[in-house]
Amino acid sequence: MGITLAQAQTALQAAHQKAIELNVNMNIAVVDAGANLVAFIRMDDAWLGSLDISIKKAKTARFFDMPTGAIGGLSQPGGPLYNIEHSNGGLITFPGGIPIPGRSGGFMGAIGVSGDSVENDHAVAQAGVQALAQPAQ
Amino acid sequence: MGITLAQAQTALQAAHQKAIELNVNMNIAVVDAGANLVAFIRMDDAWLGSLDISIKKAKTARFFDMPTGAIGGLSQPGGPLYNIEHSNGGLITFPGGIPIPGRSGGFMGAIGVSGDSVENDHAVAQAGVQALAQPAQ
Amino acid sequence: MGITLAQAQTALQAAHQKAIELNVNMNIAVVDAGANLVAFIRMDDAWLGSLDISIKKAKTARFFDMPTGAIGGLSQPGGPLYNIEHSNGGLITFPGGIPIPGRSGGFMGAIGVSGDSVENDHAVAQAGVQALAQPAQ
Amino acid sequence: MGITLAQAQTALQAAHQKAIELNVNMNIAVVDAGANLVAFIRMDDAWLGSLDISIKKAKTARFFDMPTGAIGGLSQPGGPLYNIEHSNGGLITFPGGIPIPGRSGGFMGAIGVSGDSVENDHAVAQAGVQALAQPAQ
Repeated sequence: MGITLAQAQTALQAAHQKAIELNVNMNIAVVDAGANLVAFIRMDDAWLGSLDISIKKAKTARFFDMPTGAIGGLSQPGGPLYNIEHSNGGLITFPGGIPIPGRSGGFMGAIGVSGDSVENDHAVAQAGVQALAQPAQ
Repeated sequence: MGITLAQAQTALQAAHQKAIELNVNMNIAVVDAGANLVAFIRMDDAWLGSLDISIKKAKTARFFDMPTGAIGGLSQPGGPLYNIEHSNGGLITFPGGIPIPGRSGGFMGAIGVSGDSVENDHAVAQAGVQALAQPAQ
Repeated sequence: MGITLAQAQTALQAAHQKAIELNVNMNIAVVDAGANLVAFIRMDDAWLGSLDISIKKAKTARFFDMPTGAIGGLSQPGGPLYNIEHSNGGLITFPGGIPIPGRSGGFMGAIGVSGDSVENDHAVAQAGVQALAQPAQ
Repeated sequence: MGITLAQAQTALQAAHQKAIELNVNMNIAVVDAGANLVAFIRMDDAWLGSLDISIKKAKTARFFDMPTGAIGGLSQPGGPLYNIEHSNGGLITFPGGIPIPGRSGGFMGAIGVSGDSVENDHAVAQAGVQALAQPAQ
């Protein structure tokens, strides 16, 4: 199903490190190509409600192979995907979830981060994705 | 897990008393630091639908350690946390839920009130929180 | 819907007192004639998993107007109500839930207790029911 | 909320190491005192269905502060807790979940393991718990 545990842990550690640099307490989740959880951490004193949100962000990003914030732009009142959040047992469509590209195209998983501003959530997720980017790309 | 039953009952009784003063019929819930229910009352003739709302308000306030209304300000269409209510089995993000500060920092629980206007819900919740405030603070 | 908050609190306090006498830490729930929660307490150090069980016992007892243990006798493999626990969002059919008789027949609610042996759960629930029994009955 | 992320990761790594020694592919979950997830890994090629089971085992162990297999002994047909699995959104009551003792009494969390025989699930969980045992105990 794509991402390995070792890869997921590499992404998780890079995201964790970024959160420490930003001085924020995050929930960080990595799912595989099947949108099933592979690795997760909740930092001390992170918001309890962000646990579920981080997992839902990771799933949402892989469900549609795009950053969660991009979906949120389409799910507003009057938008083409209005209230898509009701599907799949609950989506989260604000920033913080990013799909993880596969080595040979497509996506091998996604990362979801929740615990601070959506800007910081997204930055921490991005650090996780970048840790898996191929050197000579 | 933070708040004791005795403390929760102190908050519940103060909130109940405030509801009687305001002549409103409330559902009042207190959760602990783990967002699990510790004490609950539903006043006679209170809206039945407010039972679940009061518990969800208490949980929501502890999930993010802020008054529920503050989250509602961010979850509006176009806002940064649009439709966050789909997480955690359902959040309630209008006023009436308030986290309860711990004796040594952090939060030991939260109170959620539902049954009348959101202003009255919030006022009743606040009475519960204040009953646990330290005298010499 | 039957039981008043004052009556529910009378039952709750009597059950709480019985739990203290037995030196056990209980979750205690009272529901009304509509099987909706009216009052609840979780004693300090009570099992967290018993929170949901105590509420489900109270609901189950009112759903069928009999002690939960009586239903459990019918829901065993080969029994007439085998696996009835799958209904109503989950029933609990071992002892600890007892319906509360109304003043003019029928039932005005139920009490559910969880946190120790099923014998003690039942004894604490019974103390709650008896506190509401009419003197000259 | 009991266990820290650092402690949870210590338990997770020890359990992971034990799984490698036993040559089994496991899902391993650690929850805090509030039964909320703190850290999780799914080893490559581990059963996908064991993801949810590992988390439910960890929650179940903390819900009742005993190994999950002990509850399973009581929830059999004819047993005192028959079908308790219907509570709390689904319990898992066969071996593989163990509560983690706190430093000053009580429990600070629990670990749940799923992916192989229940004997191996339990052994891997136990390795996680032992990694947090105090040296001079």
